[in-house]
Amino acid sequence: MDFDRMWAELAPIGRSATSGGYLRAPFDSAERECAAWFAQQCQSRDLAVEVDGNGNAVGWWEPERVPPAGAVGRTGSTVGAVLTGSHLDSVPDGGAFDGPLGVVSALAAVDRLREQGFVPRRPIGVVSFVAEEGSRFPVACLGSRLAVGAVDPAGQTAMAEAMAAAGLEPGLGPSDFLTRVGYFVELHVEQGRNLVDTGAAVGVGGAIWPHGRYRFDFIGEANHAGATRMEDRHDPMLSYAMTVLAANKQARLAPTAHGGSARATFGRVDVEPNGTNAVPSRVTGWLDARADTSATLERLLAEVTRQGSQRADRDGTALTVTTESVSPQVVFDGDLARRIATQDGSRSWPILASQAGHDAGILAAAGIPTAMLFVRNPTGISHAPAESASMADCVAGVDALAQTLVRLAS
Amino acid sequence: MDFDRMWAELAPIGRSATSGGYLRAPFDSAERECAAWFAQQCQSRDLAVEVDGNGNAVGWWEPERVPPAGAVGRTGSTVGAVLTGSHLDSVPDGGAFDGPLGVVSALAAVDRLREQGFVPRRPIGVVSFVAEEGSRFPVACLGSRLAVGAVDPAGQTAMAEAMAAAGLEPGLGPSDFLTRVGYFVELHVEQGRNLVDTGAAVGVGGAIWPHGRYRFDFIGEANHAGATRMEDRHDPMLSYAMTVLAANKQARLAPTAHGGSARATFGRVDVEPNGTNAVPSRVTGWLDARADTSATLERLLAEVTRQGSQRADRDGTALTVTTESVSPQVVFDGDLARRIATQDGSRSWPILASQAGHDAGILAAAGIPTAMLFVRNPTGISHAPAESASMADCVAGVDALAQTLVRLAS
Repeated sequence: MDFDRMWAELAPIGRSATSGGYLRAPFDSAERECAAWFAQQCQSRDLAVEVDGNGNAVGWWEPERVPPAGAVGRTGSTVGAVLTGSHLDSVPDGGAFDGPLGVVSALAAVDRLREQGFVPRRPIGVVSFVAEEGSRFPVACLGSRLAVGAVDPAGQTAMAEAMAAAGLEPGLGPSDFLTRVGYFVELHVEQGRNLVDTGAAVGVGGAIWPHGRYRFDFIGEANHAGATRMEDRHDPMLSYAMTVLAANKQARLAPTAHGGSARATFGRVDVEPNGTNAVPSRVTGWLDARADTSATLERLLAEVTRQGSQRADRDGTALTVTTESVSPQVVFDGDLARRIATQDGSRSWPILASQAGHDAGILAAAGIPTAMLFVRNPTGISHAPAESASMADCVAGVDALAQTLVRLAS
Repeated sequence: MDFDRMWAELAPIGRSATSGGYLRAPFDSAERECAAWFAQQCQSRDLAVEVDGNGNAVGWWEPERVPPAGAVGRTGSTVGAVLTGSHLDSVPDGGAFDGPLGVVSALAAVDRLREQGFVPRRPIGVVSFVAEEGSRFPVACLGSRLAVGAVDPAGQTAMAEAMAAAGLEPGLGPSDFLTRVGYFVELHVEQGRNLVDTGAAVGVGGAIWPHGRYRFDFIGEANHAGATRMEDRHDPMLSYAMTVLAANKQARLAPTAHGGSARATFGRVDVEPNGTNAVPSRVTGWLDARADTSATLERLLAEVTRQGSQRADRDGTALTVTTESVSPQVVFDGDLARRIATQDGSRSWPILASQAGHDAGILAAAGIPTAMLFVRNPTGISHAPAESASMADCVAGVDALAQTLVRLAS
């Protein structure tokens, strides 16, 4: 198994010398270098590389031949291929593991199975989806959403242009290769501390929380920061600031106020004109909100919007809330998750909910029986340079993935 | 008097087609076009153009000859030249009047005096100072500060590079032409509503409030916006938001809490990594604070810093406050202001404090007897496209300036 060598090869690509974090934006040079590396890894293993019109790449380990298109559907037919993998792009200044761990572990699991002499009865595909992070294009999981037909390609001109600029020939839309897939398994670094708390190296995904991104535009009146009396201002920064605090409070109060668990974050802001000596004309903040149920999410959003509007009234500003994307709750195949969690007779792995979206959620929502494996992250930190996983836990993840592939592809 | 023609020529330069606001950043193309226009206006009036190593330009109306360098100092010697003018640069999306009104009115006043057959006994210089707004370089009034020797040129490499890129030969430092100046008069659009409230078209500057720019760096821990539990976060956006609200409240409370009047604004913010799905690692906000006395300003800053630090402790973030610039209070020559305010026997103009900094404040602090004239702004809005002045009030401003020049240069 070549896990360490592969990890060492990927490590320098797109890494910031100052922070140690990664910038692998979809179709930018660092991400394309990762994509080229992936194709080369597949070729060196005699995995036949197939790239769809969205840039998603699969390396096929075919026991005899790939099932013909349409021969198996997304219904979990017993002759469908088993797909595993994740993504190689990152958020700005992201960690090393979010995405690449699933791709490297998939390749390592193939190596492991071959070393063990395993002969799959179904094709096994190692996949790298593009544009999983919403870092360059406003919709997260854009590569998999396009592949399953959940997003209208006509609205994705920015991605088509980015692909063309990178020398690819864009042909956005549903992917042929997904019609041959019977199961999808995505291994991912955990992005919280559930596994740290439970003391397990590996966990199995049970569900993905519903998740929304909402743009809060606060419109005020630009003015001179010195000459304008405090009482004459219509300062949207004040309305924004109160809304930031309200969102945090509502998420903390969710168990009592909204009857569930929730997370709420304003991590991105854009100000016009953004000058030190000018009261802003506009402050736009993006609310990232998630909850264990859609009802809790809706109640949270309604309350933050209500409090923000109330403060905007007081400040003489105007608030407009625009939903940029909503990912409904995903519940993974329960039988599949339980089988994976207990496959090793000597132990069982905990089943976790994920608060982060994943390509696995997109494929599951499209009707493909899907499972996720999580590898423990001692820092609990993700989307940041401190994201981490021990080598022992990474190896445990590869073991779990290899066992899962054996079970599904036998 | 060519006021309208000059105004019409300047109007399109650097104007945004969407907002109607201006972007004339120091040494960028629009501002250089304004500078070229100014030189051409001086030449067409036979005003001898002199440009110092900072890019500040003066057109001299010399009755006989310019006094030799050093012949008169900054002591208000009776044989010193009378300088009048303002600046041509703007904040991003700024108004048409802030700066250009003082330059155009100075040229129009020269036209008016010549039409009246006035023969000055002292040279009259029409000046355009560069980089008055702190929009490109972090220090406001940089052109005049360099000219009086109040700023070390060695620290201003960004400005020297910008000048070189614009094809100028930078030679930053004290200006020779200021050694020949006995008086400076700056006409400026009012940036508040004092004149609207008092019903006067023109006012005379009495003082400029002390003013500081302070950088608030809130350092937290980047993390995933979905996967990180609310209680595990160190979110600097929360600390920032509370500090924004605290600054506003302290400025409003200044009369009771700090014993004076004050203004406080967070109009500029910078977030790292500024991603929708990431808890930020850093939020930097800039506080613009002003007050009627230095003591009030210091008390305001201390209280905002205290409350920000307290919230940072609670959020598990760290706050560092860095003073980027402080402009002490300027009190203009009281006798001069009173003489100007009452020069027209039939009426008197109100004497106002300015909450905005001006080149006039820099020259006054350097010991040059200085006066300001303000022209009524019906919107009270400045640093924004809605900044305004009626043509009748602009003409009243030119009249007042012309009368002032007659008094000082006779």
